[in-house]
Amino acid sequence: MTTTIFDDLSLWRAARLAGLRRGSTLGFVPTMGALHEGHVSLVRRSREENDRTLVSIFVNPSQFDDPNDLANYPRPLEDDLAMLDAEQTDFVLLPDQAQLYPDGYRYRVSETERSGTLEGAHRPGHFDGVLTVVLKLLQIAQADRAYFGEKDWQQLHLVRGLAEAFLLPTRIIGCPTVREADGLAISSRNRRLDPDDREKAAEFHRTLSSAATADGAARALERAGFTVDYVEDDASRRVGAVRIGGVRLIDNVPLGERQ
Amino acid sequence: MTTTIFDDLSLWRAARLAGLRRGSTLGFVPTMGALHEGHVSLVRRSREENDRTLVSIFVNPSQFDDPNDLANYPRPLEDDLAMLDAEQTDFVLLPDQAQLYPDGYRYRVSETERSGTLEGAHRPGHFDGVLTVVLKLLQIAQADRAYFGEKDWQQLHLVRGLAEAFLLPTRIIGCPTVREADGLAISSRNRRLDPDDREKAAEFHRTLSSAATADGAARALERAGFTVDYVEDDASRRVGAVRIGGVRLIDNVPLGERQ
Repeated sequence: MTTTIFDDLSLWRAARLAGLRRGSTLGFVPTMGALHEGHVSLVRRSREENDRTLVSIFVNPSQFDDPNDLANYPRPLEDDLAMLDAEQTDFVLLPDQAQLYPDGYRYRVSETERSGTLEGAHRPGHFDGVLTVVLKLLQIAQADRAYFGEKDWQQLHLVRGLAEAFLLPTRIIGCPTVREADGLAISSRNRRLDPDDREKAAEFHRTLSSAATADGAARALERAGFTVDYVEDDASRRVGAVRIGGVRLIDNVPLGERQ
Repeated sequence: MTTTIFDDLSLWRAARLAGLRRGSTLGFVPTMGALHEGHVSLVRRSREENDRTLVSIFVNPSQFDDPNDLANYPRPLEDDLAMLDAEQTDFVLLPDQAQLYPDGYRYRVSETERSGTLEGAHRPGHFDGVLTVVLKLLQIAQADRAYFGEKDWQQLHLVRGLAEAFLLPTRIIGCPTVREADGLAISSRNRRLDPDDREKAAEFHRTLSSAATADGAARALERAGFTVDYVEDDASRRVGAVRIGGVRLIDNVPLGERQ
């Protein structure tokens, strides 16, 4: 085991201060565990760009609008730690809810303009929970860089704005979505798809990428058996969320990628 | 001039990192300027307890519910800097609005239970603005201790909760209210009282301290010519807010102090 595990935030803080005194750069990958190739790509990027890499694992209750989704969220901690060790992660932070929410979530961060659209419109309170926990984690990490997947496109942009607004010393770095061979964006929730739905799920990315318009993509996805929460284009990106077999999937593609 | 002035946050950040590397402790006194003996007492306490002391001056627009109050807020910068220099303050931070609000206040911090009472009930949005700017400033300061006056009693307690909720490395220290000879709590707004109202204003503290009940204090203050926003007792403290001659005053006393 080359990884040092911290479940006590004050011990981590002391370790980070020692690193700052040495001038050691730190990359940070916040996760909710159930790690997959997407997370591994973030850890590898962090290791390339920093002296040390910290990964946190915390399934954050405040960002779940659906209690079933929270209850069913996978928590394979032993596998996660083995994967992080294999990737030579330097530090793993395993905070618990009492440590991260001493206030019982009385204090929260919100964004007033862009957090109410797309995911925010379909998941009430979701981004308040995300922004609140990310600010706590970034504050603890005191990292030079933090890595977020582009798969959560709206989250990435809101977190980038958060770091700027609260003058954090951390640069927010977006990393490309990692996909299965058939194009499905890798997600912890994919393992909840039954085999038929798993096969069908690849249509989501194919349709986002190939349809001429967002509305056309939404109609094609409905015809293919998905329930569409939204498909929308902005200046450079098409973002979408669908449900199939009780599992919610999100994805996005650059608009130039349409065929 | 022994004081180093920072109007560039990144230069301050570099100086603080150098201090952290040396193991130098830092005390922080966030202010809105118009400094008086109350602020001086915070600076002195900080100098006693820390290797270095940082004072920030920023009149925070987001915490003003009344545009007239913001417009009339005194900004005697030269006097403030002379006073801080005389007190041998090590560092002064003079951020501007663009530096502290690159997001245009899209991102904000709120507290869901205790911020809507007392001051919060009478000044809509006030504590969102306070908590947001204080989190930014504490995040920049990376101080060991930060000093707040007990005069802003509810603010002190909300800021203490904020530091705990966001896992800040900074201990929040409340300091006793400094009073004029006649008992009036010193405040930047006192200089806006005309001589008659200034004399009458001393009744506020006397009545808070002497009345048997909060309601009795409120009635006595109304009789004395104040407009009472509230007077309330909790377990250990009587807090009140009144208006006289267009100036709003707040104060609080320990309940044991009643005569």
